[in-house]
Amino acid sequence: MSLPSPLLYRRLADTLATEIRSGLRAPGERLPSVRALCAAHGVSLTTAVQSYLLLEREGWVEARPRRGYFVRARPQPRQEPEISRPTMVAREIAVADLALNILKEAHRTDVIQLGAAWADPQLLPLKPLLREQARWARQQPQLAGVYEVTAGHPALRHQIARHLRRAGCHCDPDEVIITNGCMEALTLSLRAVAKAGATIAIESPTFYGVLQAVEAAGMKALEIPTHPRHGIDLGALERAISRHRIAACLLIPSFNNPLGSCLPVAQRAPLAELLAAAAIPLIEDDVFGDLSFQWPRPPAVKAFDRDGNILLCSSFSKTLGAGLRLGYVAAGRYAERVEHGKLLANIATATLSQATVASYLKKGDYERTIQHASRVYQRRSEQLRHWLSRYLPAGARITEPQGGVTLWVELPPQLDGVVVHDAALAEGLSVTPGVIFSPRGDYTHHLRLSYGLVEEAALAGAARRLGKVTQRLLRRGV
Amino acid sequence: MSLPSPLLYRRLADTLATEIRSGLRAPGERLPSVRALCAAHGVSLTTAVQSYLLLEREGWVEARPRRGYFVRARPQPRQEPEISRPTMVAREIAVADLALNILKEAHRTDVIQLGAAWADPQLLPLKPLLREQARWARQQPQLAGVYEVTAGHPALRHQIARHLRRAGCHCDPDEVIITNGCMEALTLSLRAVAKAGATIAIESPTFYGVLQAVEAAGMKALEIPTHPRHGIDLGALERAISRHRIAACLLIPSFNNPLGSCLPVAQRAPLAELLAAAAIPLIEDDVFGDLSFQWPRPPAVKAFDRDGNILLCSSFSKTLGAGLRLGYVAAGRYAERVEHGKLLANIATATLSQATVASYLKKGDYERTIQHASRVYQRRSEQLRHWLSRYLPAGARITEPQGGVTLWVELPPQLDGVVVHDAALAEGLSVTPGVIFSPRGDYTHHLRLSYGLVEEAALAGAARRLGKVTQRLLRRGV
Repeated sequence: MSLPSPLLYRRLADTLATEIRSGLRAPGERLPSVRALCAAHGVSLTTAVQSYLLLEREGWVEARPRRGYFVRARPQPRQEPEISRPTMVAREIAVADLALNILKEAHRTDVIQLGAAWADPQLLPLKPLLREQARWARQQPQLAGVYEVTAGHPALRHQIARHLRRAGCHCDPDEVIITNGCMEALTLSLRAVAKAGATIAIESPTFYGVLQAVEAAGMKALEIPTHPRHGIDLGALERAISRHRIAACLLIPSFNNPLGSCLPVAQRAPLAELLAAAAIPLIEDDVFGDLSFQWPRPPAVKAFDRDGNILLCSSFSKTLGAGLRLGYVAAGRYAERVEHGKLLANIATATLSQATVASYLKKGDYERTIQHASRVYQRRSEQLRHWLSRYLPAGARITEPQGGVTLWVELPPQLDGVVVHDAALAEGLSVTPGVIFSPRGDYTHHLRLSYGLVEEAALAGAARRLGKVTQRLLRRGV
Repeated sequence: MSLPSPLLYRRLADTLATEIRSGLRAPGERLPSVRALCAAHGVSLTTAVQSYLLLEREGWVEARPRRGYFVRARPQPRQEPEISRPTMVAREIAVADLALNILKEAHRTDVIQLGAAWADPQLLPLKPLLREQARWARQQPQLAGVYEVTAGHPALRHQIARHLRRAGCHCDPDEVIITNGCMEALTLSLRAVAKAGATIAIESPTFYGVLQAVEAAGMKALEIPTHPRHGIDLGALERAISRHRIAACLLIPSFNNPLGSCLPVAQRAPLAELLAAAAIPLIEDDVFGDLSFQWPRPPAVKAFDRDGNILLCSSFSKTLGAGLRLGYVAAGRYAERVEHGKLLANIATATLSQATVASYLKKGDYERTIQHASRVYQRRSEQLRHWLSRYLPAGARITEPQGGVTLWVELPPQLDGVVVHDAALAEGLSVTPGVIFSPRGDYTHHLRLSYGLVEEAALAGAARRLGKVTQRLLRRGV
């Protein structure tokens, strides 16, 4: 994949959009003529016209016949949802079947996919990766024939430890265990730190895969209030620790799926210390951590880990390719237990793909790849919020993601997320109902929307379609 | 890899060896001169000489200077061990750490590997496989980017269902779930059919991975008496069923690891019926089933399954390449539960390797590949037994494998398998102590030996070395 520096017209459009967003150019204001824009920025006529067309497509400006381009009156940004207020009773999980059905929909290609929180294949460096794999296959075909050691390919463990420095972590390659993706990292970590019957503290809402992993391990989930932008409420977590016997925490501090929230950097050391003091291990799901809208990315909570109490789980599924099934856990003092669990789960991860990703990471293109992808997702995120603000019914609230590929929508309470899901699907649009993001289906009028698989140009149409569906259901008094 | 039809001199040697083994040519008998052999079989002088040299290397004949070749006096074949007599009390597993350490040794390349029950990379069709993979990577690079559906790549599930017809199974592709190797198939199957605390009936001895999977799932193992050549004792199993609450059976009917035993074909339908009548699901580990020394291979027990009660687990690790991490379970009526477990374990198996193996299987070379490998393993098995009979101390007993890559040795009771293991390792020879093949370390003076990684020519030396080590320990009165 080539990663062009942003095209000239894209850069010019971004400059103008920034001026509009900051208020430097007010709604209704007439923009410079195309010729004036050329002169002011030293660009060609074509570039100037392309910039305006792009801004028009993205909803920043509107063309008025024979008069030129004007700043568009933008809808008031929607409020974010309030901080969540779960009941804080440890509960068993009861939404498994629904989650399974929803996941199957993610493979549908005949609908607009606001449902799947997957990476856009066009943003993955598949060609250089597969070239690298072909090189390994030619030079060392026997790699396909032999089991890798259970903990993983040594060169890959080394590269991951090196990569984690960008998240502020100084890990020993020996504590890195390679897994078949992040989900396996989470599952193995849970079983390494707690037993059946134990209580696991989680964010509310949180990724349904987390809930299902807790369920499959025979554990209970204790939901902690979580802010739609700033993540878990540390005060509430502290109170929960004093009142419940919590065996472990499983959190997504960097871009919670579904919220897109980010625990403020200033709260990360205190979180690490709180849990260390209570001797409660933290499983940190960092699968979206590299897709930060701020650069450099925030340090992981594990960056503040002093005694191996934090198990950082992640994967290359959102940045190199989910089909590789390559993830990892930097498991601190639980490394040996995770390794044992990995042995019993499937002996080792595939050899050739580990060697491939190790040498790809060594080449040093990974950083540029994820920066580029993050910028694209950030633009999509802004666009989707913009269009949702325009089209969703009054009273709807939308989170403002700080990274990742998902946002969270609170609909008017009379709407049922599952009904919306069904009606949207009938209109060729896939969304994820909120109920599967809590243990017992609390988020009844919520949706998770993902912009991972939907290109910028298609977001307006998708939002409009969702707006129509929800407005119609409201009129019908669902 | 090219698979030549057996070379002429190999075929001629096999003919003579068969005559010797059957008693048609007695020990001490003089064999035809080289010229007479040429005339009798219509072969060249070179071929005749090569045949005799091969037979000499394999220990069937000896050359006496200026007199020609004579049938060698072969040592009395060693007795097989007796049928096992485990205590038949459901027990928790207590040999995990030892098993882990032993497995790590399997990766050592500085020793003669009688320890690892792995396939010989030289017998795997790695080059055509990787060519196939390169083709997919060129034509559909996006396969590396996307999650496969949880149950697996449809074309691969179809090919596996087709392949299973050779084991007498008529499976629907819909009941086939793709896994990361057979170990994952076993783990997912266990969790699909039973809960923590349940009792699982197993053979004694059995693969330590099975024991560890039972332990990791929080279940107990009930060992059933098992014959070293004919596998599990159905009568004993029936009595166990009447006395214990057995939640499931996990058996290796086709070439038990470590024994190499094979449940007689006539007992397979009765086993399936016994378990169906008792409503006890059978997890059938068939990972060595394709490496049968008889051709066609015996039908799987699942061939006699009428109501989806049998979950057949297998993989391509022993026949195409362990580094692929590709296995499967034909899960009968438990398919949906296994699929759910797979989702929570790691969402799906890697996409590209599934597509690769599907098209490799479709091409139809697989059958020839496994037939060739089976013949090589059979010869190695015979050779290893021959040399062990010669070199092991009096009182040692050796099983006669019917397939697979392992055999089981019962040493004189004063020898400790772990001590033998340590002493052999110091001499550059890796073996597996028997204790890890029972839940609480019963097989103290037993060893598992594998001929998967050791070429024919090296087996005599390996057996001699093991003989020296054990004789020395005996003299020392260990």
